[in-house]
Amino acid sequence: MESAKDNGESKTDVLIIGAGPSGLMAAYWMARCGINARIVDKRGTKVFTGQADGLRMRTLELFDSIGFQHRVQQEGHVAVEANFWVPDGKGNLIRQGPHCSSKANESPFRNMLLNQGRIERFLLDSIQAHSDLQVERGVIAETFEYDEKMEDDPNGYPITVKLRTLSDEEANPSSLRVTETNHTAAARGVARGNLLLDDWNELVTRSRAKETKSEIVKAKYLIGCDGAHSWTRKQVNIPLEGSTTDHVWGVIDVVPISDFPDIRRLGTVTHASGTILVIPRERNMVRLYVPVQTIEAVTTSEGRFDRSKITLEIIKQRVQVIFAPYTFDFQVCDWWAAYQIGQRIAPTFSKGNRIFLAGDAVHTHSPKVGLGMNMSMQDGFNIGWKVALVASGVAQPSILGTYDAERHRLAEMLLDFDRHWSGLFTEGDEESKPQNMIKVVELFEDFADGRKSFYGASELVWKLENDRDQPAARHLTPGERFPPVKLRMQADGNLRWTTRLLESDGRFRVVILAGDMREATQKDRVLALTQSLSGSDENESLVLDHYTPIVGHFDSAIDVIAIHSAPWTEVEFFDFPKILRPFDPVRGWNYDKIWCDDACIWNKDCDGKGYERWGVDRMRGAMVVVRPDQYIGWVGELEEVDELTRYLDGVLIRKAANNCPH
Amino acid sequence: MESAKDNGESKTDVLIIGAGPSGLMAAYWMARCGINARIVDKRGTKVFTGQADGLRMRTLELFDSIGFQHRVQQEGHVAVEANFWVPDGKGNLIRQGPHCSSKANESPFRNMLLNQGRIERFLLDSIQAHSDLQVERGVIAETFEYDEKMEDDPNGYPITVKLRTLSDEEANPSSLRVTETNHTAAARGVARGNLLLDDWNELVTRSRAKETKSEIVKAKYLIGCDGAHSWTRKQVNIPLEGSTTDHVWGVIDVVPISDFPDIRRLGTVTHASGTILVIPRERNMVRLYVPVQTIEAVTTSEGRFDRSKITLEIIKQRVQVIFAPYTFDFQVCDWWAAYQIGQRIAPTFSKGNRIFLAGDAVHTHSPKVGLGMNMSMQDGFNIGWKVALVASGVAQPSILGTYDAERHRLAEMLLDFDRHWSGLFTEGDEESKPQNMIKVVELFEDFADGRKSFYGASELVWKLENDRDQPAARHLTPGERFPPVKLRMQADGNLRWTTRLLESDGRFRVVILAGDMREATQKDRVLALTQSLSGSDENESLVLDHYTPIVGHFDSAIDVIAIHSAPWTEVEFFDFPKILRPFDPVRGWNYDKIWCDDACIWNKDCDGKGYERWGVDRMRGAMVVVRPDQYIGWVGELEEVDELTRYLDGVLIRKAANNCPH
Repeated sequence: MESAKDNGESKTDVLIIGAGPSGLMAAYWMARCGINARIVDKRGTKVFTGQADGLRMRTLELFDSIGFQHRVQQEGHVAVEANFWVPDGKGNLIRQGPHCSSKANESPFRNMLLNQGRIERFLLDSIQAHSDLQVERGVIAETFEYDEKMEDDPNGYPITVKLRTLSDEEANPSSLRVTETNHTAAARGVARGNLLLDDWNELVTRSRAKETKSEIVKAKYLIGCDGAHSWTRKQVNIPLEGSTTDHVWGVIDVVPISDFPDIRRLGTVTHASGTILVIPRERNMVRLYVPVQTIEAVTTSEGRFDRSKITLEIIKQRVQVIFAPYTFDFQVCDWWAAYQIGQRIAPTFSKGNRIFLAGDAVHTHSPKVGLGMNMSMQDGFNIGWKVALVASGVAQPSILGTYDAERHRLAEMLLDFDRHWSGLFTEGDEESKPQNMIKVVELFEDFADGRKSFYGASELVWKLENDRDQPAARHLTPGERFPPVKLRMQADGNLRWTTRLLESDGRFRVVILAGDMREATQKDRVLALTQSLSGSDENESLVLDHYTPIVGHFDSAIDVIAIHSAPWTEVEFFDFPKILRPFDPVRGWNYDKIWCDDACIWNKDCDGKGYERWGVDRMRGAMVVVRPDQYIGWVGELEEVDELTRYLDGVLIRKAANNCPH
Repeated sequence: MESAKDNGESKTDVLIIGAGPSGLMAAYWMARCGINARIVDKRGTKVFTGQADGLRMRTLELFDSIGFQHRVQQEGHVAVEANFWVPDGKGNLIRQGPHCSSKANESPFRNMLLNQGRIERFLLDSIQAHSDLQVERGVIAETFEYDEKMEDDPNGYPITVKLRTLSDEEANPSSLRVTETNHTAAARGVARGNLLLDDWNELVTRSRAKETKSEIVKAKYLIGCDGAHSWTRKQVNIPLEGSTTDHVWGVIDVVPISDFPDIRRLGTVTHASGTILVIPRERNMVRLYVPVQTIEAVTTSEGRFDRSKITLEIIKQRVQVIFAPYTFDFQVCDWWAAYQIGQRIAPTFSKGNRIFLAGDAVHTHSPKVGLGMNMSMQDGFNIGWKVALVASGVAQPSILGTYDAERHRLAEMLLDFDRHWSGLFTEGDEESKPQNMIKVVELFEDFADGRKSFYGASELVWKLENDRDQPAARHLTPGERFPPVKLRMQADGNLRWTTRLLESDGRFRVVILAGDMREATQKDRVLALTQSLSGSDENESLVLDHYTPIVGHFDSAIDVIAIHSAPWTEVEFFDFPKILRPFDPVRGWNYDKIWCDDACIWNKDCDGKGYERWGVDRMRGAMVVVRPDQYIGWVGELEEVDELTRYLDGVLIRKAANNCPH
């Protein structure tokens, strides 16, 4: 960031308000692309306990593209099968299940549970690995001005925010989120034993008492990730619209003492008075979503929801009633909360393509769908790269308009899913509940797990008319993710999932599905393509050199990789065109651009069936543009360079004429 | 550690000299078991570049039992297939291969390459996660006294060592290990770009100029891990015996610029004048072992090997000759060294069961077998838990004698392998070299990869006469590792490899292979066994409660787990005896003691064939004792509790009579 001026005023390209999962995701892109950015959060520390916990496969794929999926895998809890418990009419509960999605294997990863605090830790570590960007904690935004006249000036700073550093007391309220029922030191939620070392170090060194001061920050772009009561949203007068239902819910993170057989398995327990959702977690914890009572019982005479009427004891007693004849109790409660279910959404997620809102700031819903953190992170992921590339002069400002289009539709689906799903917990007859639940899950699971993103047509997503499949690649659909496949690197034989290969580094990727390179005619097609892209000798440069690079990071905003279909041992690295073997006089050849879809005898996941999964002919191949966020932007034949160029021209900014060699 | 006394004298139970891989492995156990220990190293910082890089599957299994295998997996380079290049007689080189071991899949992990500096990082992080033990860097041992009269007194401190803190200049010699050929800032070996963030932070905060001071330390046990020129070994007058060969070798870690097709693949390149070993590494580096010349050429008139006559340029030119007609050059050299091949071994690895030597201190050999770091770490791993358990009063001091017996035999095999393998690089005709190399690799691969450990019979390893297989478990062999299988946890369905399940936490494990618990007779057998082990109600305690606990860590030095063979959905957690469901009034039930060998549809590695792999009847099961280091100690039938007790009595110390409830 630029240093504060004498008058306490500074400039930043991007200001992010809120360092929860969505804000940190957006900040990751700023760190990765070297953007002049700041991120502030009113809390004095990161989250350590409670909050969200569900991680859907698509989120885990994105983590893999960032580089910390292995840490989630090591610590998290997998939950694939679900069990549904219903009364048998004789006073007992009986199990229906386990039910397992038939699509569980359509990702390298399975749905998992791990608390938000750990995810924030991993994101913070990734941000630190790539930049000096630090979350400024205990800092609130107090005043806001927006100068619409500057909206179209890419060099203008239309946003003015006054930031204030909070005192230690303001930033770290004494009301711990941790509640103990039966006090013992060991049972304390926030104690070294309950925190991993990296988080513990952060907690003990958290920002200590400091001067409270104010500062004026001028910004080109503002991303508001400041939660359901978003200050940012209020500044731009965007409402949250929707309704609440008439039920009050409790959510508890406890170490249960229960003889319920499936207390460590994902599932539901149904009772005439409502259904509990059981979510097993790391370190023997279980999260329970508990229907507590109707809203009337806790409404004040002024008609307001009085949260203080719900206690941990009340929630526990409700669980005991619903779990009967099984027992339920606990000594350790890591976190708990009471909430009223509602579905609310902002009519728009942005203003003037300068101010963007993400996560709970623009959509709130029941947490029971296990999707909130996922959706919020994917919001931050979606807007983050777009703002980063526009702020750095690489991408057309017009792509910022796709944020609202892409994410608003998803938020509406989220609310729709939540309405269907949450309703089942307090309504309907008990016996048919499991079947109804499975029906709802199956109806929404492509959306919920993130296997489908439903991003519509735009300059970033070129679809064929009527959403027809591209004949060259029937299952590579613009607007959808690149279906994960485990590949071998041609040069060294190491294996990598495409989720990690398509690294989230800010670049668009032209993926050449090169087909069978043993055949001379196919090799010629690939050569002709690469010559169109980059010229036939090292000094010539065509398509790829036309666009503004990500200065200080990459010479080109476009990465080119090839995935061929011949057996690994039957082609050689040097068989491939030069563009796929970039050479640097110090670092030598770059070996990680050429990959092979061939079965590997020492790894069962690498089955050599990628082309089939993508619907691509193993001989002829195809060409795909993958956006920086791993979503498919364009699909075509190897010869369709002109159309590819038109796609890129709609998204990226050409170098200024005097810098262009042609 | 106890604080230094006025006279500059302190006591510690265990002193470890040397914080390389073997010393850190030993220190891990001290951290894990809460031992009063110190570890010192004369170097001012850990290793960052160069040194060892080969990681065999068994080492990776041990890492999994410690908890950081996922970090190696994320950063390291897999090398499974090998290619052998030989002259074709017409001036060209031709490839023979790839050759892949038929046993590559007999572990969760594949052989990998990653530099020693990263492994030290992960070990240091594990030590920190479990204790406050810190490596004291820039500290050398200067004087040594040993009082043999105290040898048999478990409370005695027979070892006296004077430690001295070095000045900054002494500890951090200016002769950087990094050599640059063509200087550019980017090409510097030790620069932020070449180090991961955690290592970089350590480097910049390394111990700064400090007072040099001396201190007398009295210790019960001393573990010398101080390398080939071991100071510790010299104090106890143990020689290194063996011979050197007549060849000088160079080893270089470079970022190669070469058109050799397999520069990124494990393999050899043979020439009339010798064979190069090519080892691909992380971050585009390659390690080459290069036969440089005969020893005469670099011997001084006094008959000493003059290392200064070997330069990086000379090594490079040799590679160019052997690689011809392919090109070879580099700009970045991370590390290089010249060495004379020799095989030397100490006749004994210990003195008086108080002083132990590990790693290079007692065996040196050619690095080309890619085993040195593995063997050293396994030495430290082997002696570490034994000293930790004896020092804490849990285990019989007599088990310390097994260190020498178990590891000396392995070190001899290592030297034997090295003699066979290294000889091939400078001898024999070129054409038959690949077949000869494959023969040697296949002859030694069970040993080299660690699939077999060859630990002989002792109080820790109960073998049947004539090494017969146990009929109850034909492939579970005392003295060998527990063959890895991926299992499901009964309570929650999560998957875990046995390598991680059998965590290196200091405890012996009684593994009850419970068979098919759906059958009443089998269930009765399991119940009878567990009642013999722990009594039939919670207040009674038999076998398991007889032994001294690991104070402050575990109530018992014996952990009991079950692995049953019924389908996961057809038995329940509460079907199992109480001993397998330990209950704590605060933390509730412990769910991770009951596991299932059943195929899982959402994970290909979990195939439900564990019992078959172990040679155990799926109905009747068996019983196994696994030592703290995951090696099998004893195997029997579920009824053989008396024999089990005799095994445990030979290893563990019974509680003092007045503390014993019986």
